[in-house]
Amino acid sequence: MKKFLKKFLLTVGSIIIFSTSVFSASEILVFQSDFGLKDGAVSAMKGVAIGIDKDLKIYDVTHDIPAYSIWDAAYRLYQTAEYWPAGTVFVSIVDPGVGTERLSVVLKTKNGQYFVTPDNGTLALVAEKFGIDEVRQIDEAVNRRQDSEKSYTFHGRDVYAYTGARLASGAITFEQVGKKLPSKVEMISYQKAKYEKNTLVGNIPILDVQYGNIWTNIDRNTASKMNIKKGDIFTVEIYNKDKLIFKDKMPFANSFGDVPEGKNLMYYNSLDSLSFAVNMGDFASTYKIEYGGDWSVKIYK
Amino acid sequence: MKKFLKKFLLTVGSIIIFSTSVFSASEILVFQSDFGLKDGAVSAMKGVAIGIDKDLKIYDVTHDIPAYSIWDAAYRLYQTAEYWPAGTVFVSIVDPGVGTERLSVVLKTKNGQYFVTPDNGTLALVAEKFGIDEVRQIDEAVNRRQDSEKSYTFHGRDVYAYTGARLASGAITFEQVGKKLPSKVEMISYQKAKYEKNTLVGNIPILDVQYGNIWTNIDRNTASKMNIKKGDIFTVEIYNKDKLIFKDKMPFANSFGDVPEGKNLMYYNSLDSLSFAVNMGDFASTYKIEYGGDWSVKIYK
Amino acid sequence: MKKFLKKFLLTVGSIIIFSTSVFSASEILVFQSDFGLKDGAVSAMKGVAIGIDKDLKIYDVTHDIPAYSIWDAAYRLYQTAEYWPAGTVFVSIVDPGVGTERLSVVLKTKNGQYFVTPDNGTLALVAEKFGIDEVRQIDEAVNRRQDSEKSYTFHGRDVYAYTGARLASGAITFEQVGKKLPSKVEMISYQKAKYEKNTLVGNIPILDVQYGNIWTNIDRNTASKMNIKKGDIFTVEIYNKDKLIFKDKMPFANSFGDVPEGKNLMYYNSLDSLSFAVNMGDFASTYKIEYGGDWSVKIYK
Repeated sequence: MKKFLKKFLLTVGSIIIFSTSVFSASEILVFQSDFGLKDGAVSAMKGVAIGIDKDLKIYDVTHDIPAYSIWDAAYRLYQTAEYWPAGTVFVSIVDPGVGTERLSVVLKTKNGQYFVTPDNGTLALVAEKFGIDEVRQIDEAVNRRQDSEKSYTFHGRDVYAYTGARLASGAITFEQVGKKLPSKVEMISYQKAKYEKNTLVGNIPILDVQYGNIWTNIDRNTASKMNIKKGDIFTVEIYNKDKLIFKDKMPFANSFGDVPEGKNLMYYNSLDSLSFAVNMGDFASTYKIEYGGDWSVKIYK
Repeated sequence: MKKFLKKFLLTVGSIIIFSTSVFSASEILVFQSDFGLKDGAVSAMKGVAIGIDKDLKIYDVTHDIPAYSIWDAAYRLYQTAEYWPAGTVFVSIVDPGVGTERLSVVLKTKNGQYFVTPDNGTLALVAEKFGIDEVRQIDEAVNRRQDSEKSYTFHGRDVYAYTGARLASGAITFEQVGKKLPSKVEMISYQKAKYEKNTLVGNIPILDVQYGNIWTNIDRNTASKMNIKKGDIFTVEIYNKDKLIFKDKMPFANSFGDVPEGKNLMYYNSLDSLSFAVNMGDFASTYKIEYGGDWSVKIYK
Repeated sequence: MKKFLKKFLLTVGSIIIFSTSVFSASEILVFQSDFGLKDGAVSAMKGVAIGIDKDLKIYDVTHDIPAYSIWDAAYRLYQTAEYWPAGTVFVSIVDPGVGTERLSVVLKTKNGQYFVTPDNGTLALVAEKFGIDEVRQIDEAVNRRQDSEKSYTFHGRDVYAYTGARLASGAITFEQVGKKLPSKVEMISYQKAKYEKNTLVGNIPILDVQYGNIWTNIDRNTASKMNIKKGDIFTVEIYNKDKLIFKDKMPFANSFGDVPEGKNLMYYNSLDSLSFAVNMGDFASTYKIEYGGDWSVKIYK
């Protein structure tokens, strides 16, 4: 009996220990891409991941990133990652430079999340927001789907999804991703929000696209360094790189109804950042304003 | 040995008991919204849920509800919920009244499902279909994501997804959602299907949008109170609120081919409800018919 | 103590054994349809599956198959299935013949995957690619959602999703699907890639739709039977059934920049198959080329 008992306890114990060790990795894998969902590309990536560990919890940011838009890829991670737990592994595939010398990396941020992606600017905003803990280059000699080097390689599936799934499942440690790189990632230059020389400056990170409103990255804290009261008139300049695209005066208002229909206004959006709109109109299409690293604004009295 | 054995058994036992208790909640969480999937809003909600319990089984009804359409939100829950198991927690965020006095509630229906949503009409059709077991108001003092009150609050993420995930995971009981409210929800007025004064009346809950056919809520049981035979001619009136939008005669037919091309017909659709169509045409766009609570029909000989 | 111990060990043991037996089925269920995601149809199918086993791992190929396109259904399975593990159960619902005599079947392929679908051509390409292990007809007397025969039957939900989920969860074995059929499935006729009489012939399985490039199924192996060098001029003919839609000469090029803007070229695409493009243009829309079983190409010097 005792012998049987010992053996039994060892078996049960090791099953429990094994389960525990498997469960020490987060198991949470979140995909993002510019592939859309009409063909089978996203499904193929998830199939590869499930083939590594069928208990992975697989989710998405979005697969409707505009084609090749690194800015959108960077911004959607920046906007979304903080709501996912520490240990989450993000795999982002927006890769206009596939086949060029951009590096395939995994970034570990200081909040304990992992980002698997080509290092092409996609990591810029999460690196700024969370801080870089460590960057490692994916060693494609070992971290790639078996047999995938034989013919056409789809990096999103064969390298990024594969590596992300192995990291999330605990099949490899972060160290086993590949060699450590200097603690930096490819950055995107854009206008940080600040107040200087009686002027607020900032960037247009995204549009409120359904209504055509212009959102800036100038939050209420920064904006409050300039005295802003309801009804005050401000000059707003909007630039694409160095080219002035829009310049006009408009009032600061608490709500759209404070200005007549068809008139411009400045207001705080739902994220508490300064924004511009036309009451009952579409500012972005009217003045051909877009968003991204190349777009900046100046606001002064 | 015995001491070790006891301890071991207690450990194993408590692991098993703990697992069992965790599994007593349904763990099934189903989202619906009008956010679309292009930005990170839906992903942020799922991240919050996974942060509460990574073993939640998270699915969707749709995130393509037309913006602010409470009717569609109500109808899609009505159409879909019955195919999900008892215990499923639905989180629906279509919230044109965000910031107004609409209540944040959880409805438990008599079939044992939970619906977490602003009480703005979204619950009307499931309440009618399944019956109200109990309604509770979400106590936002305790049932909100930590630190989310500090700045901008995205209720879908910080209150509804958070509360739905905690309920689905068993972290809170239904009673812990908040105080019990009277057993009613905000209703949507629309024309119920019935037969009176030799006339069938009903509503247009949805269109067969690909073909532009008009679907009513008049099922075969109700319709059979009027004598309907192939080839019989009926007068059909379609109203938007009190305004007559369409009035014409058409035959009842078993199939589209029973009438000439371009001619109207009345028939039973795939859900066995009375419907109107143009053979080889688009009834809805031809006569500018839409759907929702404001649309009603009258049918008589 | 001993008695208690025995009982305890039996309990623990049976829990472990039970867990193991549950886990012997793959639990992986992958859906595909032409339903889109705007209404609740896909959600209802997943709800039925979760009602059978909430631990199923449910994923998608795509639900944006063009309406009724059996070719797309067949091609997306062909393209995607190999990246999912053995044991995966695919449920594909593209069913223009619903209500006709097409059979409801489950195909087991030689790579150990299962495909649940109307046998209308959807299975043609995976059957060719992986080989047929066995085909069984779904016995709808037992393999359908309870009570679903009472009124309107939505086969995707009530038969296919239900049967797929029961197979994936281990609730039924493959044998319990229904009676064994002859080892064949409904095929789609299309031009296989081959080289004969100094001519390469093949099919257009899909377009590179974002750019309007024409992809053929003529891989580099087959193509290399004809001598193809950069700058060589080839005559390309494109047919819809027997009708010649396009005929012109174009050079083989390594990259688009090798020909002037607006000029046609032949090249190897990212899958290493011969393709046609207009440099800085859209070949497909310019010449009204589509894809599918009815489209074929001839290439000769």
